[in-house]
Amino acid sequence: MNRKEAVVGETQHKGMPEVGTSLLSGVSLPAAVVHEPALAHNLAWMQRFCEDHGARLAPHGKTTMCPELFQRQLAAGAWGITLATAPQCRAAFHHGVNRLLMANQLVGEANMAIVAELIEAGADFYCVVDSVANADQLARYFTARGLRLQVLIELGVPGGRCGCRDTDEVMALAERIDSEQALVLCGLEGYEGVVHGNDPERAVRAYAWQLVEAAQALDKDALIESPRPLITASGSAWYDMIAEVFREAHLGKQFVPVLRPGCYVVHDHGIYRQAQHDILGRRPELERGLKPALEVFAQVLSLPEPGLAIVGMGKRDIGHDQLPEPLRRYREGDERPGRTLSVAGWRVTKLMDQHAFVQLPHDEDEPEVGNGRVRVGDIVAFGASHPCLTFDKWRRVCRVDERLEVVEVMQTCF
Amino acid sequence: MNRKEAVVGETQHKGMPEVGTSLLSGVSLPAAVVHEPALAHNLAWMQRFCEDHGARLAPHGKTTMCPELFQRQLAAGAWGITLATAPQCRAAFHHGVNRLLMANQLVGEANMAIVAELIEAGADFYCVVDSVANADQLARYFTARGLRLQVLIELGVPGGRCGCRDTDEVMALAERIDSEQALVLCGLEGYEGVVHGNDPERAVRAYAWQLVEAAQALDKDALIESPRPLITASGSAWYDMIAEVFREAHLGKQFVPVLRPGCYVVHDHGIYRQAQHDILGRRPELERGLKPALEVFAQVLSLPEPGLAIVGMGKRDIGHDQLPEPLRRYREGDERPGRTLSVAGWRVTKLMDQHAFVQLPHDEDEPEVGNGRVRVGDIVAFGASHPCLTFDKWRRVCRVDERLEVVEVMQTCF
Repeated sequence: MNRKEAVVGETQHKGMPEVGTSLLSGVSLPAAVVHEPALAHNLAWMQRFCEDHGARLAPHGKTTMCPELFQRQLAAGAWGITLATAPQCRAAFHHGVNRLLMANQLVGEANMAIVAELIEAGADFYCVVDSVANADQLARYFTARGLRLQVLIELGVPGGRCGCRDTDEVMALAERIDSEQALVLCGLEGYEGVVHGNDPERAVRAYAWQLVEAAQALDKDALIESPRPLITASGSAWYDMIAEVFREAHLGKQFVPVLRPGCYVVHDHGIYRQAQHDILGRRPELERGLKPALEVFAQVLSLPEPGLAIVGMGKRDIGHDQLPEPLRRYREGDERPGRTLSVAGWRVTKLMDQHAFVQLPHDEDEPEVGNGRVRVGDIVAFGASHPCLTFDKWRRVCRVDERLEVVEVMQTCF
Repeated sequence: MNRKEAVVGETQHKGMPEVGTSLLSGVSLPAAVVHEPALAHNLAWMQRFCEDHGARLAPHGKTTMCPELFQRQLAAGAWGITLATAPQCRAAFHHGVNRLLMANQLVGEANMAIVAELIEAGADFYCVVDSVANADQLARYFTARGLRLQVLIELGVPGGRCGCRDTDEVMALAERIDSEQALVLCGLEGYEGVVHGNDPERAVRAYAWQLVEAAQALDKDALIESPRPLITASGSAWYDMIAEVFREAHLGKQFVPVLRPGCYVVHDHGIYRQAQHDILGRRPELERGLKPALEVFAQVLSLPEPGLAIVGMGKRDIGHDQLPEPLRRYREGDERPGRTLSVAGWRVTKLMDQHAFVQLPHDEDEPEVGNGRVRVGDIVAFGASHPCLTFDKWRRVCRVDERLEVVEVMQTCF
């Protein structure tokens, strides 16, 4: 057999099993895994949340950059997909997403050229602007291309990230945009995830009302060219507050309210689990809530000394804003396939590039049967925080059913 | 123009310009950049270091997972390429690397199957073993496949990562391997990067001597089957100490000493710059040393308030063990192309997924000309630490010449 025959096609990356394979035998680990039941639940849950609040859903696609998940989100009723960069928009459009909300500044001629091609190809594209300097750059470029660019003004907060710092700045920028034939003002954008304060709930609510007032001021001065202007905000931690304020403000007559959570689609085992806990505390009527759907499966490589397992999974395989959490364990080639073994007391203490250090409970008397004392080769499922920084470690993600059989090998487009 | 025509081929990921484009116009930023002059210097420098010390070089390929760089390393004289996982070995072999040193345990039947295919296709493959349990698993699998697997025993340290904890364990494992027809013991492996102590220099030296003694004990008891056994250790921080001890021990007669630094190929602006500084302190005769070759170029998206620039580069674009360091600035469309502008006093204070927060010096009187006060769209080159976690953020990396023209778009195989 020659080299090409041995390693054909797309087998040059990690995480590429065949459909029908079981995660517990036949899949090269580590592998990133999305559980279909939790995924389906989350897709329906967030779509319904938005509809119940009179808002449209444009899930942030940067979380997954996974076209198969974009299609699932659109099929569930999403209005469009939000993205962070021009290449991300190009990837989504290439995979059939027509309405693209780039919740970021469009800077640099090469990035403008990417967007110009998308518009020429029929994309319904929006990006955000927060400075006269950028508006002038965009107007110059798109005028030269003979195209019109749909923009939203970004309203930020002092000490925050991008965005105009107050309504006066918003109004001044709107007038500049109004004077540029190549730019079409379509509404207002914000992101409450960078709002800080001693009382974050109050600060986010105040910011949401600021967005409403700035949008109404633009509308009043007839500075918005689009007949159905957008007002959009929200990540995955405060979408309930944003939705509530937009609903209270009865914006629905003048504006299309658009929510943009991203992480909800697979949820997580860390910061978003906590955020969801807070949301359900504020809004007990939102029963059940989201379910974590994304895990990384990896194998024990070594048990070099008592109380220590080295697992074949590292910073290149899983998000590490927080250390991953061992969830369940399986035995490769178990006589009872799929049986879960205990990880009680297991704790990740350190991640290197390709290895995790797991501290085990000192339980020398643990029986070999039943609970299943750990062995080299045992398969461990880990949860992580947050999903954006797990997805981007993988070119392929396995979607699995409740029996842990691979039903789809989904690509990512980072 | 239809969708397919607009976004053809491989244009669905970031960082994919055409050869001949200048980084300062026409390349969608952010982009990862390798500077050819520093790369060429590093390739030659480390090869010469190894030859001067009577050692072979098997650069750790997991750093870059870049086949074009593997070929450069082999062309410079490398003995083989080191890798961390079975899929990484498959990718390297697929791209023409025949001698593969997997400096890690081979665990799981799916990973064993990948390696079996490589051996059948003619690869000269080695992996490491540190437990009887794993040796038994490997023997069972490779016996069933009718293949023989070349292994090295790993010697670790108490409190370290994988590896036998002392020479007794090494000898016992060697005897078990000796009893398995499917396993060919080819030498000893270690990694000094996980050795700790109050005096790390002394601890690393002591560990290197432990490796020598364990290897000699294996040789004395005739437990090594290979006629030219290997002894191998070293990452990019202590290669000088390992090389020195291997040379002092006159191992060259019995063993092939193999060094495995990875990060040297592009060096860095953080932990490895410091490590190199320490090495040159220990070994002043190693003139000049390595040069940082890897940078990420990104653009200023917004200047929302005095003293703050938001740059379009985040955790998904650059390693963040330490915060990235602004190195130089350029102006897109500058009337003097390639002129560098100051980043004196610039400091990254925070990274989000897609954004960097840069604190600027409060210098309201900075002249618009000359030093070039910052503008939206300015291009900033950032250095990072460490390279492994920058390369894995990119599917394509731009190799550029001294004029910042793209001379090659190199792929990565993560």
